Amino acid sequence: MKISCYAAPAKGAPLEPFEYESRELGPGDVEVRITHSGICHSDIHLIDNDWGISKYPLVPGHEIVGVVTRTGPEVRRLKVGDRAGIGWQSGSCRKCEMCATANENLCDHSTATCVNGFGGYATSIIMHSHFAIRIPDALASENAAPLLCGGITVYTPLRAFDVRPEMRVGVIGIGGLGHIGIQFLRAYGCEVTAFSTSPDKETEAKSLGAHHFVPTSQPGALASVAGQYHFILSTVSADLPWPSYIAALRPKGRLCIVGVPNSDLKIPAFPLIGGQKSISGSPIGSPLMIREMLDFAARNGIKAKTESMPMHRVNEALAHVRANKARYRMVLTN
Amino acid sequence: MKISCYAAPAKGAPLEPFEYESRELGPGDVEVRITHSGICHSDIHLIDNDWGISKYPLVPGHEIVGVVTRTGPEVRRLKVGDRAGIGWQSGSCRKCEMCATANENLCDHSTATCVNGFGGYATSIIMHSHFAIRIPDALASENAAPLLCGGITVYTPLRAFDVRPEMRVGVIGIGGLGHIGIQFLRAYGCEVTAFSTSPDKETEAKSLGAHHFVPTSQPGALASVAGQYHFILSTVSADLPWPSYIAALRPKGRLCIVGVPNSDLKIPAFPLIGGQKSISGSPIGSPLMIREMLDFAARNGIKAKTESMPMHRVNEALAHVRANKARYRMVLTN
Repeated sequence: MKISCYAAPAKGAPLEPFEYESRELGPGDVEVRITHSGICHSDIHLIDNDWGISKYPLVPGHEIVGVVTRTGPEVRRLKVGDRAGIGWQSGSCRKCEMCATANENLCDHSTATCVNGFGGYATSIIMHSHFAIRIPDALASENAAPLLCGGITVYTPLRAFDVRPEMRVGVIGIGGLGHIGIQFLRAYGCEVTAFSTSPDKETEAKSLGAHHFVPTSQPGALASVAGQYHFILSTVSADLPWPSYIAALRPKGRLCIVGVPNSDLKIPAFPLIGGQKSISGSPIGSPLMIREMLDFAARNGIKAKTESMPMHRVNEALAHVRANKARYRMVLTN
Repeated sequence: MKISCYAAPAKGAPLEPFEYESRELGPGDVEVRITHSGICHSDIHLIDNDWGISKYPLVPGHEIVGVVTRTGPEVRRLKVGDRAGIGWQSGSCRKCEMCATANENLCDHSTATCVNGFGGYATSIIMHSHFAIRIPDALASENAAPLLCGGITVYTPLRAFDVRPEMRVGVIGIGGLGHIGIQFLRAYGCEVTAFSTSPDKETEAKSLGAHHFVPTSQPGALASVAGQYHFILSTVSADLPWPSYIAALRPKGRLCIVGVPNSDLKIPAFPLIGGQKSISGSPIGSPLMIREMLDFAARNGIKAKTESMPMHRVNEALAHVRANKARYRMVLTN
């Protein structure tokens, strides 16, 4: 079957209409007619080949929501007519320890929707059903699409690192990831502080659920919260003042990064040792975790805040995201 | 009461006989007649004022074993004639959350035996009984003394970071700390690998309990164990090839440092994020943890390997440790 989509023909180039012949529907596959496709900053990194892993023509898109139109004979969790979501991951070995323990996102042989195949800026997609997740009825497709990558990226570390309701937690960055992270942590029952270099984001941060706001560009602001936090989630892709954030952790606290900084982390050893503190990272989440995250979002009214454009305006939409103007996630619609 | 001891009169100077008037025995205090006093590298850092916290005259010594000679009226856990051990910590606020949860080693107001007072290179010492721990009968005093600092430093992270018997674990460095860490991890039931830059330490590492040995100075040796370990404990005070050790961790693995490297840690973000890995630090341990560690050591035949000299040869003993010739801990005896 021919699939219509938008592809970058070369590194950094504007997207152009493109068509490809999709694989046959396998026994475990589903075909999804795409209604919504979120734009994630990772799509832009791929278009620009920032990570050196891109192949062209490149069809971005890994925050996909649509309707199941066909299922292979072995598919059990989805049926024709269901709304399904697809995120960053499209496959894994399905036999290693990580796969066996529902940690497919940590499988060494993980494949990515729009790296190892053509992605979601398209009319439809064929995908193994293990990596297509039913969307709960309470979630609107437009608000759900960014949860498939942005949402699960901030949800997984809360589970992986045992964040609990009694904790004082922080979220660095109030953007595409951070604005969802604040909502999850508030719904967890935590005492939530938002950290931002933009003092004008305080009202927005609090409307998302933050109890407190620290304007980190103001001298002394970070120092004033030293020793406070059980857990801090960094969602920004920047070189942060790491020693100040280590200092902001209470003893036994953890700083978890999900945004990729430009350079290696430079971490002073003494405060890490003295405070029994940790620095961790976390990538996306398993299919099971995505299911749980969507249910949790549905039950707690958690949404990605979105703007949308029809898919044929994809280059305009990308420019909007490149200019950091999207509040907070841009979604393409068919 | 006058206490005879050995003190460094100035930064880096040889130790000299010294006498000080000790405080009166308080209601919660014990007086301990010192029989054994371990030499820890931290003592040398203090003599040399490497950490900028030393005051002179400085009496080192924070791996103390002796016999209780007097107790204040409020002392309940120790009685005259008991053998008691004293480690790095001499006090804490006893009211903060860390103190209330038996994490006194993480109290902001922690005091140190030979920084905030005169230490263990002495005939006796007066100490609050909360920080003096009964030594199990099965442990010889000479082998127990280094457990009070070196031992607890490698034991605490196993408990704090939930190291379990089914895990593949590594110990970097086969020295004063590492040789005890290998024994604890073997007794835990883990599959233990020792990492050392000295290929000639393989036999020794295996006699201590290591199942495997990685000679890290040999090209490709570290790369050959990529993705293997749940937990790696670094006991060395050196700038290690951090990216190689992060790579040696399996997904969800943790690198814990208890040795202080010379420079900030430089950690690549991508492998930390992609593998959901962690880097942590850990300092000494609480009095309760020391008690548990000593019981565990007694039950499992775990000993610090020691050499000893009478205390009046303290400068000779220090030179031996400075030259990295002690196998593995030097203990001064009265």
